[in-house]
Amino acid sequence: MDTTTSTACVLIIGNEILSGKTQDTNLQFLGAELAAKGITLVEARVLRDDKAAIVAAVNECRAAYTYVFTTGGIGPTHDDITAECIATAFGRDLVLHEEAVERLRRQGLELNAARLKMARVPAGASLIDNPMSGAPGFRVDNVFVMAGIPAVARGMFSTLDEELAGGSPIHSRNVDVYLPEGELAAPLENIVRKYSQVEIGSYPFFRKRGGERRFGANLVVRGTDEVLVDQVLQEIITTMTGLGGDTG
Amino acid sequence: MDTTTSTACVLIIGNEILSGKTQDTNLQFLGAELAAKGITLVEARVLRDDKAAIVAAVNECRAAYTYVFTTGGIGPTHDDITAECIATAFGRDLVLHEEAVERLRRQGLELNAARLKMARVPAGASLIDNPMSGAPGFRVDNVFVMAGIPAVARGMFSTLDEELAGGSPIHSRNVDVYLPEGELAAPLENIVRKYSQVEIGSYPFFRKRGGERRFGANLVVRGTDEVLVDQVLQEIITTMTGLGGDTG
Repeated sequence: MDTTTSTACVLIIGNEILSGKTQDTNLQFLGAELAAKGITLVEARVLRDDKAAIVAAVNECRAAYTYVFTTGGIGPTHDDITAECIATAFGRDLVLHEEAVERLRRQGLELNAARLKMARVPAGASLIDNPMSGAPGFRVDNVFVMAGIPAVARGMFSTLDEELAGGSPIHSRNVDVYLPEGELAAPLENIVRKYSQVEIGSYPFFRKRGGERRFGANLVVRGTDEVLVDQVLQEIITTMTGLGGDTG
Repeated sequence: MDTTTSTACVLIIGNEILSGKTQDTNLQFLGAELAAKGITLVEARVLRDDKAAIVAAVNECRAAYTYVFTTGGIGPTHDDITAECIATAFGRDLVLHEEAVERLRRQGLELNAARLKMARVPAGASLIDNPMSGAPGFRVDNVFVMAGIPAVARGMFSTLDEELAGGSPIHSRNVDVYLPEGELAAPLENIVRKYSQVEIGSYPFFRKRGGERRFGANLVVRGTDEVLVDQVLQEIITTMTGLGGDTG
């Protein structure tokens, strides 16, 4: 695959994702958005509300990737420890950010200790706007700290456009082929070998078509060269049709 | 929290989860199932189809946790590299498993090279039954290798009951409280401080109730002592009702 220069890692923070209480949906959203910007999402980790684990992961990942995005743990309750963890990871103090205080004040709510916690960020952090409510996220160097609630995470990410340097957008084409993976694997691998500049994936399914359940696979071609992606998809379709596989 | 002795990590393998193409649902399922068995899921990682990254994560996690569960990458196509990665991680050869070959044969399909790849496992691995189709998963020491397709992953996990040593099951109770998190945070923290044997989480929402949209939080109590979990939840309800918060 034609690799882009920017890479990313997502850290999903919260016991609720690991206990089975909550289905995460931020990862899929961020993966698609980053690909559209030409940033390769290389890894994601889901972590408990555990300070040592979060600090270690932040430090490992911010050294390894161009960008780190965290979701979750920036609210006012006892289990919201992300800001404190980021401060520790960077060896900085957690300080009250005046502009963040002002944004919370504008919501018209009493600024008690719990709410003021949402205005405490690592020293030197810049704010990430929250189009949904006042409480901002923040950025320290290459680490972007966002809320866990999907609508808020999406809103915050949408404000980052100019801060993220991507590469060429990654284009994706796919086709459903009604052949068992065991039959299409070898001819597909021949195509994979010919085109190292694109990434080809095979995702099997077993579904109803024309009254009967049939095996097949969704074949995906991804790459930055849109013309080549289209050409490889066409070659896959021609090859699979030649093998007797319905497509579409 | 009253920690159990067994811990787990889930490794979700596949470019499609990180590109935004596919929404993972195996993590939520495994998190809930492991909690019911008294096994604490401490971490999950989502990895690309990249051999070096998978080998490194497997070796790091199998040393750190009681159990490692992987999903994805055990089919017949070029992008299915999990078995090869596990073999490398353990320093073992990848060998044809006669019983796995027999199970594939019983499906009545031609055993070409691609299909036989699904019978290749690290030397010494034991098979994990696949109740959905013939192709098995496998286990090496504390690493359990399962399919990525959710129905197959669930089927395989369901056969592992006797192989997993858990602790006391983790009980969970929750209540919706219609108070903003910024108001309930301090009184909730007092309760958190009193009961270190349970884990308490607060998950905010903003939803319609009685014709208007209101802020609130789902408060969750988890622990192995069911009587205590019930008691703490009751104390939360009494406290929140005293603050003027509707519950239910």
